[in-house]
Amino acid sequence: MTTYSIADIAKAVGATAVGDVSLCVTGLSEPADAAENSLALASTPKYAEHLAKGEAQAAFMWADADWASFGLKAAILPTRPRYAMSGLTKMFDPGPGFEDGIHTTALIDPTAVIGADVNIGPYAIVGARAQVGDGTVVGPHCYIGTDAAIGAGSFLREHVSIGARVRIGERFFAHPGVRLGGDGFSFVTPEKSDVEEARESLGDNVEATQQAWHRIHSLGGIVIGDDVEIGVNTAIDYGTIRPTKVGDRTKIDNLVHIAHNVVVGNDCLICGQVGIAGSSVIGDGCVFGGQVGISDNLKIGDRVICGASSKVLSNIPAGRVVLGYPAVKMDLHVEMYKALRRLPRLTQDIAALKKAVFKSSTND
Amino acid sequence: MTTYSIADIAKAVGATAVGDVSLCVTGLSEPADAAENSLALASTPKYAEHLAKGEAQAAFMWADADWASFGLKAAILPTRPRYAMSGLTKMFDPGPGFEDGIHTTALIDPTAVIGADVNIGPYAIVGARAQVGDGTVVGPHCYIGTDAAIGAGSFLREHVSIGARVRIGERFFAHPGVRLGGDGFSFVTPEKSDVEEARESLGDNVEATQQAWHRIHSLGGIVIGDDVEIGVNTAIDYGTIRPTKVGDRTKIDNLVHIAHNVVVGNDCLICGQVGIAGSSVIGDGCVFGGQVGISDNLKIGDRVICGASSKVLSNIPAGRVVLGYPAVKMDLHVEMYKALRRLPRLTQDIAALKKAVFKSSTND
Amino acid sequence: MTTYSIADIAKAVGATAVGDVSLCVTGLSEPADAAENSLALASTPKYAEHLAKGEAQAAFMWADADWASFGLKAAILPTRPRYAMSGLTKMFDPGPGFEDGIHTTALIDPTAVIGADVNIGPYAIVGARAQVGDGTVVGPHCYIGTDAAIGAGSFLREHVSIGARVRIGERFFAHPGVRLGGDGFSFVTPEKSDVEEARESLGDNVEATQQAWHRIHSLGGIVIGDDVEIGVNTAIDYGTIRPTKVGDRTKIDNLVHIAHNVVVGNDCLICGQVGIAGSSVIGDGCVFGGQVGISDNLKIGDRVICGASSKVLSNIPAGRVVLGYPAVKMDLHVEMYKALRRLPRLTQDIAALKKAVFKSSTND
Repeated sequence: MTTYSIADIAKAVGATAVGDVSLCVTGLSEPADAAENSLALASTPKYAEHLAKGEAQAAFMWADADWASFGLKAAILPTRPRYAMSGLTKMFDPGPGFEDGIHTTALIDPTAVIGADVNIGPYAIVGARAQVGDGTVVGPHCYIGTDAAIGAGSFLREHVSIGARVRIGERFFAHPGVRLGGDGFSFVTPEKSDVEEARESLGDNVEATQQAWHRIHSLGGIVIGDDVEIGVNTAIDYGTIRPTKVGDRTKIDNLVHIAHNVVVGNDCLICGQVGIAGSSVIGDGCVFGGQVGISDNLKIGDRVICGASSKVLSNIPAGRVVLGYPAVKMDLHVEMYKALRRLPRLTQDIAALKKAVFKSSTND
Repeated sequence: MTTYSIADIAKAVGATAVGDVSLCVTGLSEPADAAENSLALASTPKYAEHLAKGEAQAAFMWADADWASFGLKAAILPTRPRYAMSGLTKMFDPGPGFEDGIHTTALIDPTAVIGADVNIGPYAIVGARAQVGDGTVVGPHCYIGTDAAIGAGSFLREHVSIGARVRIGERFFAHPGVRLGGDGFSFVTPEKSDVEEARESLGDNVEATQQAWHRIHSLGGIVIGDDVEIGVNTAIDYGTIRPTKVGDRTKIDNLVHIAHNVVVGNDCLICGQVGIAGSSVIGDGCVFGGQVGISDNLKIGDRVICGASSKVLSNIPAGRVVLGYPAVKMDLHVEMYKALRRLPRLTQDIAALKKAVFKSSTND
Repeated sequence: MTTYSIADIAKAVGATAVGDVSLCVTGLSEPADAAENSLALASTPKYAEHLAKGEAQAAFMWADADWASFGLKAAILPTRPRYAMSGLTKMFDPGPGFEDGIHTTALIDPTAVIGADVNIGPYAIVGARAQVGDGTVVGPHCYIGTDAAIGAGSFLREHVSIGARVRIGERFFAHPGVRLGGDGFSFVTPEKSDVEEARESLGDNVEATQQAWHRIHSLGGIVIGDDVEIGVNTAIDYGTIRPTKVGDRTKIDNLVHIAHNVVVGNDCLICGQVGIAGSSVIGDGCVFGGQVGISDNLKIGDRVICGASSKVLSNIPAGRVVLGYPAVKMDLHVEMYKALRRLPRLTQDIAALKKAVFKSSTND
């Protein structure tokens, strides 16, 4: 069981320790659920109210908390509690409990290059000439394709598949069911297609034709930077000629779809079920809320924030915050939406005006 | 081949059998496709019209159906046909055909606790101290993590992964590719992030800064109630400190994303591609249509119904039916939408009014 | 390494070769990245501008390109470059590098029927009486259920699962994590459910009741036509009584959800994260952009185009182009949206009119 003293924890997360700093805790709890040997997480006065319901003798609070007034023996007082939570939870994370070493059922091609201190789980497969960096963990049932490369210090949970020729930086983290290396969804008709016509004409005059789709193969690979994390069952497709790219330190949530040729910059946060269509380019430091959709061939500038479920149909300049379908600047969206809510009453006002002005009461 | 008499079937589903109730059938069909030994499903007069196109001698109809007039030899007359379909389809379900017993290639940790009459498929893995209840089926290629627990009478199809420490009740049903136990998507910047600023200011004055995301680890586990069913490739993440929870008898469809700390109540129905963001709490008996999005940290009351593709950005009180993006009460949504459709004409009306009142015809 | 002469390539893709047609190339590149032995892809004048930045001696251009003016030794001049890309990329596709033959760890039921020249990867499973057509590749970790059938010339990447009794045509292509054969999401309550009430009353008077969901089992199978391609982690559910169907030559992208009883026609293109709810019928030649949602029990005519993120809540006649939530004809959507953007100003106009006409300035 993991055990740390209050002093050790405070030092590790860069916070102040107060009271009996030699007191030891074995885990983290919400205040009301805390056992005697837990560190209660009470990072705001609102959470601290619940300390009395639990048994905690020590709590993780805020910089100027009056910790003694809660009957605690010790406390940790961080200046930015939310940030300190990162180090705190890392200390107590038991991980998935994969076994060390290379399992006897792992199938590793003799030409694969496996680094030092690598763990490879049961029924995992590593293809020809694939490279696995030092200290990397390849979970059970993973598949690493031919000529793929995964940097040092990476961690692949179970059931991950990394396609042939995918190149990944260091400290990569892949959750279960991550799939890097589907082919791009790129099909073409022998003649100009209905969709091409519709895009050009905004929907007018699209003639009905029988058309069969022919596949454009994906030769472009995928390049993933350092310190990237990718969530459960997320899919990133190969590029067509140039690689699909994800920049350094970018984090991607569950069930996200990143299409062929897309470039995602550094330090982005892409939430659950986001979809980014083919060839769009996303700047650095962008944040996309859940279920955001980015249409194809767009340019999204640096530090753009897309509110949840925004559907982006045109380019966005750097630094903009957008919302809606189609996505517009957030303040415009709020103004439009307020007006829309007032619209039924407005319709009545106009009917009254028409009656007064034109002696007519019909409105439709 | 499964064979039942009309009398047996009617008894099993709590319906009335009429005619030659000893007649046997070997399967279920739509009326027009029915072979002589099929039970035709003709639960409404509209479906019954097609009986003459098929060969069925027996049909599953409705309470007061004039069955003999369709030339049938026998019929089953349920009071609520839609409900009786549950028992009826269960009788004829052949299942996936997994082999009995524990396959020789299944890797079961010696410390795992395996109940009586458990089937474990080829290439499945069961981790240290994991518990598998009596009569449970673990499909091919499944992964059950360390210290996970799955209740009795459960059924896991192929390629399912259950992370370490996940606790699941009885009669659980997991479809292929279900993933319980990704880490929560929870990242923090050393300084206040652009997103925090944008939320507080509604998008104004978000300054451009270089920020790196630090991971908050997920220590909180997952707790799933009894009689829960989860669809293909659906992902449920661990909680941060407290567990992510799904209540008893709740059913979840394919490709759904349930984030860290979310609590879903009992008896909910969550349709395909729904996303529920972190820490939101969903009441009992809720029904979410396909592609619904629930933003983070919201409270959704009991028996709320969200129409398909609703995007919920604020709390919803119990019993409400909502639709739209942002989701509002369904009648308000309908009223707003009708007004929006009339808006282009209204714009012309206003131009005419302005001309009449102000002698000005410009509208923009 | 793949090597082709300019003459060979032009012949294969039905284009004109000019210059030193015996010149050989070993791969395809974007113009600026091209090495000396690459064929530069410069299919428009805009792309051709970048030829000078690279080292290419040969380029893939357009019908009347003045190729010699770019200092090239040879060129390929197709009449429809986008279509010629299909053949061109196929020639240079190295594929995933799976090994030939049937791997010793593949578990194949003795009653399975395996065609000639079939490759089956490590840790793949083929169930009882399953059929795998001639020349088909079954990737690592794939699961093929009992009585399933896959046509000749198909290719299954890693981690694919095909449920029992699923029937698939020839030249099928499945990307990693494809799941055919989840059960339909079909549940029923003993009494009429809140959802049924809400649909009938548009949300009024839905009474609060405790209801438990009972499963309607899926007996209907899945039937997939010839030349179908399905993307990463996409899910198609079994039908209830009749099969769920996907027509010939239809292509489906990543993370798509196709529910029970759905019928998708021939020659459709279904982009990433689309969801089609239960029992809807989609015509031939339809194109659905990313994140489109189709509600249940709808009829979508032939050659309908749904713009990205359209949410379809009612039937659509053949040939229509739609957009929005709810989806409407694209020109109506554009008109409504323009009016909505003008609405805040319109609201001010009305207040002014009211003041002038009624001597009242209040607007809400």
